[in-house]
Amino acid sequence: MAGNTFGNLFKVTTFGESHGEALGGIIDGCPPGIELDFEAIQREMERRKPGQSSIVTQRKENDEVHFLSGIFEGKTTGTPIGFVIPNTNQKSDDYSHIKDSFRPSHADYVYEKKYGIRDYRGGGRSSARETASRVVAGAIAKQMIPEIKINAFTSSVGEIFIDKPYQALDFSKIESNAVRCPDEASAQRMEEYIKQIRKEGDTVGGTVTCVIQNVPIGLGEPVFDKLHAELGKAMLSINAVKGFEYGSGFCGAKMKGSEHNDLHNTDGTTKSNLSGGIQGGISNGMDIYFRVAFKPVATIMQKQESLDVHGNLVEMQGKGRHDPCVVPRAVPIVEAMAALVIADYFLLDKK
Amino acid sequence: MAGNTFGNLFKVTTFGESHGEALGGIIDGCPPGIELDFEAIQREMERRKPGQSSIVTQRKENDEVHFLSGIFEGKTTGTPIGFVIPNTNQKSDDYSHIKDSFRPSHADYVYEKKYGIRDYRGGGRSSARETASRVVAGAIAKQMIPEIKINAFTSSVGEIFIDKPYQALDFSKIESNAVRCPDEASAQRMEEYIKQIRKEGDTVGGTVTCVIQNVPIGLGEPVFDKLHAELGKAMLSINAVKGFEYGSGFCGAKMKGSEHNDLHNTDGTTKSNLSGGIQGGISNGMDIYFRVAFKPVATIMQKQESLDVHGNLVEMQGKGRHDPCVVPRAVPIVEAMAALVIADYFLLDKK
Amino acid sequence: MAGNTFGNLFKVTTFGESHGEALGGIIDGCPPGIELDFEAIQREMERRKPGQSSIVTQRKENDEVHFLSGIFEGKTTGTPIGFVIPNTNQKSDDYSHIKDSFRPSHADYVYEKKYGIRDYRGGGRSSARETASRVVAGAIAKQMIPEIKINAFTSSVGEIFIDKPYQALDFSKIESNAVRCPDEASAQRMEEYIKQIRKEGDTVGGTVTCVIQNVPIGLGEPVFDKLHAELGKAMLSINAVKGFEYGSGFCGAKMKGSEHNDLHNTDGTTKSNLSGGIQGGISNGMDIYFRVAFKPVATIMQKQESLDVHGNLVEMQGKGRHDPCVVPRAVPIVEAMAALVIADYFLLDKK
Amino acid sequence: MAGNTFGNLFKVTTFGESHGEALGGIIDGCPPGIELDFEAIQREMERRKPGQSSIVTQRKENDEVHFLSGIFEGKTTGTPIGFVIPNTNQKSDDYSHIKDSFRPSHADYVYEKKYGIRDYRGGGRSSARETASRVVAGAIAKQMIPEIKINAFTSSVGEIFIDKPYQALDFSKIESNAVRCPDEASAQRMEEYIKQIRKEGDTVGGTVTCVIQNVPIGLGEPVFDKLHAELGKAMLSINAVKGFEYGSGFCGAKMKGSEHNDLHNTDGTTKSNLSGGIQGGISNGMDIYFRVAFKPVATIMQKQESLDVHGNLVEMQGKGRHDPCVVPRAVPIVEAMAALVIADYFLLDKK
Repeated sequence: MAGNTFGNLFKVTTFGESHGEALGGIIDGCPPGIELDFEAIQREMERRKPGQSSIVTQRKENDEVHFLSGIFEGKTTGTPIGFVIPNTNQKSDDYSHIKDSFRPSHADYVYEKKYGIRDYRGGGRSSARETASRVVAGAIAKQMIPEIKINAFTSSVGEIFIDKPYQALDFSKIESNAVRCPDEASAQRMEEYIKQIRKEGDTVGGTVTCVIQNVPIGLGEPVFDKLHAELGKAMLSINAVKGFEYGSGFCGAKMKGSEHNDLHNTDGTTKSNLSGGIQGGISNGMDIYFRVAFKPVATIMQKQESLDVHGNLVEMQGKGRHDPCVVPRAVPIVEAMAALVIADYFLLDKK
Repeated sequence: MAGNTFGNLFKVTTFGESHGEALGGIIDGCPPGIELDFEAIQREMERRKPGQSSIVTQRKENDEVHFLSGIFEGKTTGTPIGFVIPNTNQKSDDYSHIKDSFRPSHADYVYEKKYGIRDYRGGGRSSARETASRVVAGAIAKQMIPEIKINAFTSSVGEIFIDKPYQALDFSKIESNAVRCPDEASAQRMEEYIKQIRKEGDTVGGTVTCVIQNVPIGLGEPVFDKLHAELGKAMLSINAVKGFEYGSGFCGAKMKGSEHNDLHNTDGTTKSNLSGGIQGGISNGMDIYFRVAFKPVATIMQKQESLDVHGNLVEMQGKGRHDPCVVPRAVPIVEAMAALVIADYFLLDKK
Repeated sequence: MAGNTFGNLFKVTTFGESHGEALGGIIDGCPPGIELDFEAIQREMERRKPGQSSIVTQRKENDEVHFLSGIFEGKTTGTPIGFVIPNTNQKSDDYSHIKDSFRPSHADYVYEKKYGIRDYRGGGRSSARETASRVVAGAIAKQMIPEIKINAFTSSVGEIFIDKPYQALDFSKIESNAVRCPDEASAQRMEEYIKQIRKEGDTVGGTVTCVIQNVPIGLGEPVFDKLHAELGKAMLSINAVKGFEYGSGFCGAKMKGSEHNDLHNTDGTTKSNLSGGIQGGISNGMDIYFRVAFKPVATIMQKQESLDVHGNLVEMQGKGRHDPCVVPRAVPIVEAMAALVIADYFLLDKK
Repeated sequence: MAGNTFGNLFKVTTFGESHGEALGGIIDGCPPGIELDFEAIQREMERRKPGQSSIVTQRKENDEVHFLSGIFEGKTTGTPIGFVIPNTNQKSDDYSHIKDSFRPSHADYVYEKKYGIRDYRGGGRSSARETASRVVAGAIAKQMIPEIKINAFTSSVGEIFIDKPYQALDFSKIESNAVRCPDEASAQRMEEYIKQIRKEGDTVGGTVTCVIQNVPIGLGEPVFDKLHAELGKAMLSINAVKGFEYGSGFCGAKMKGSEHNDLHNTDGTTKSNLSGGIQGGISNGMDIYFRVAFKPVATIMQKQESLDVHGNLVEMQGKGRHDPCVVPRAVPIVEAMAALVIADYFLLDKK
């Protein structure tokens, strides 16, 4: 249970620290015979990596995936797919200032208390750099279930929200701007706000909405392993996530049953979809949609008090990298985790 | 993975349909030598069961737990604890009207499609009656970790919210009213609103807030099995739950890093606790708190269209039982699931 | 991992002590729509239970299975099947003599050291009575895969061995004698030997051979979860088992490759089958066969030294029940465990 | 369950094909703060690798482990340990002759049928080369439990057996000869026999005995996860293994209870140890010992019939590499798997 494996039948186990030699992982359970599109995998890596535009962190990461097994003549063989992503750009000296201190709202303090030892460079294992491995696995999961459409996008940054339902959005525009927001007007406001936040040396949170379409009826297990419970766990396992809601979500908690119930059509579809495509933990064939809340990342370029290992409060300032809003980069990670969940239930429930 | 087991080291597996002979379960991994307080277990059962007050469902369930193994001379032995809860009050004829139809926003339709067969009586396995088994397991988990304080309460019903932070509430008052809301003024308004909803034959949603105190530092696993990810999955697995947030939650997504960061005190505690007692997936010793959204239950006493098995839309009206607001009864279930998660990590991480 | 669950997709979890109120279990993952033959299940229970003939223990156990869930109108529904087997005949006073002592080669001593508490009556959880639950689950597993033929039989008692290959035996004769040996001449010698052992107040070991026929090609996972590795674990988990071999087994370790290799026929079958139907951990469509070694049970009707809880050696004599040779009763247990393994891989690999 | 992970709390997942770019794995659950002896790890790799002496295969494998994560300043950090072992010497052309044929008693045929695709070079994933990753993990497991002594040795080759009990052997002599047999006279006979087998272009099987000393009382879980059941599964998962027995093993099946019972001493130890250090699935503090049967490896340097993919029988002869007796090289693999099992239960049961 040491927590580095996700999935039951389509399983991914990851390893790697931010500033170690490499990240990587093993995908176990991928069916044989899938002709992999390696460019598509690399594209997902590019979407996740920092330094893509002026609004995100300037640290360059060169995220090249290197596959070591499980693939023969371009196709999956059914054996485990091992892969590594070398850490080419790490500079350990950048992080000497955090060796002896616990940055506020980072995992430094709890790692020290839990393990008694930690690779302090760049956050070590607790760095969001770990999600690079998830994106690799998710990109392969997507290729396993090509009929299923998974689209995530930035639905809010700070107080700026898209004020339309997802049905009114054109998902093909998600990649058309740096914030990954398919609503152009909102996207522009978000970008401007993030630039201002960057100038302040601050960070800001936001939300990602994800829509999964074309899911067959019957994915998900009743009781503890409900489809949305597993989706929730997957999303909450992403760095900086503070909340998850699906379908009507927290709004649904304010509603009456007479408003909330999704009446059927004669073909089994429903007239409304406040259920969010899942009933009793099982997909009902309607769109699955959910929203994920990301807090502002803890590393800010302002002076802040930190606790040092000797129990003293010391003033510290973030150095070098600055990611004023992590939400756009989280979009491919949300998609990757969604793909992993769906692929896993696909193997379990579509046999 | 068929989904009826929760936990890794403190594991509970449940069985049972709403109108079968009995519900029950097996708790595997409970440490030996715990002197069980059986009255405390039964008390939790009473908190969950319907028919406790005028505002909840009038169906009487007589939820007596019967332990079959794993306990010797009043103490746990370290072997699995098997238990049953007989279904004494079920009347199958009450449910004949749903045999051939799929009620809106229930699991009837997806069960039929997934399994091709279903025990339609009272919702069968998808009935919230299953949570009785969780409450038994949770009550034992609580006794395994008596130093940890777990308090859940109704924090909203419909649009009526407690407008105070949890620190301003007196948890000893949670059981002093039928809605399980420790804020008396809010409780009264909630009760009145639920009575009105009952008269309308409707239902309403709400939220439960849960606070876990006195948690040692170091519970939780980084990466996929973060403490809050497992808590989220646990809560999302409860019937009718649509959302989960912890610490600053969805509000945190609107904030700046400079506002959100929890600065340390010299003793390692933090001045604020927007992190919600968990950093990097690991408990930091501060209070853990989270909020769970419940949609209004689908069974209403108004006429609604249902889909029958022949593909026709038929008008149907809920019969017999009516639970206008399930939120107060969900309070002990939220506590039970929280106890299961904490007990599980306790065994894993406190060795 | 607390060890009371077997299987991955077809999962059984058992509970219960020898002299508690009941044994039982939960089968999770059984596919829906199987029309259960309850008489067949009860027949397997009869095969396992003590007191069937003059050569086995005289203790009467009335092993009636009582199903509580997961079955509707005689068919499985895909939800967990809970069941109990009441302990109707236990007499606690029979076992007062072992309350304060650790019988040689029983689990009394290690349970005391491991748990600090034990239900000493009749061996508690370590009693072979637990296998009754396995037989229920195995009987249902058999009905899930009716095309697969699983036949186990007594292949040796003490030094008396069947001296024929299994291919020369008529499995329909297994139940024709009390020792469950399909070779009549050997059966007679075994029976006489067991009667003599009974007179001596002693016990004797033996082996069970199991043959699984009509297995499709492709069951089993390479590397750690090889089909024979899981079969081996299943068998070694049965009380009193000391060894497992499949195909050529320990004999194969004396052979040369040129003798041992199974040459193919043009249809993919093999001319010999020293591989035992499994190659590289995966079934190849040939008969799977293996042998399981049972030590003599530890309870003998002779005086023996025991260690008491105060650290004194005391002379003790077994009382009441006497099972001179447990091997014939182990036959249905071996079959049940084999059925569980095959059913589990069937769900995993035949999708 | 796709079968490439072993262990529950001390978990190893492996990847890699014989002739792919690299093998490797992830160790998840290793406790923090262990100062690793990298030379000791490499020494175990040397013990396993081919080409160590004139009696084993001449293929040179250069097995250098490269650690990528989970280690900081020479110590484990509690995060997953990723490692790779590059395949430096593979020559794909050596294996072109098996591209279209299924060698007898290899996994070629079942892989083809199960997956529909296979990396045929050198056996791909089914090659014993995979065990290199196990040896890495086992070497680290050993360092986690330094107080426990694990010694395996060759106890038979073909018909040549050590005719002494393990207590009469000096384990320090295991590495003094090429066959890893601590009994010099037997070792010499074994070596000569293997040389003769080599000349014949044949192979021969044998057995490995393993003794685990200084195990604390209480490791192992009753019922399905008995300590010896897990050891059995671990051993049966090693390539070419056909049988496993512990304590009295198959011999015990011939004995009477009055001979077999291990009487206690007043300190809780036992006068004999036919139980093999495990009672009721739980370690009792006595030596654990078991024996593992290896069949002769299937690749022989003689002409044999193979089945080709078109359904024709073709004569084939093994090329290049020849390992007349794999048993000596299996010794470190048996130790590695034993270490993994013990380390896993250590984490579970010694908390």
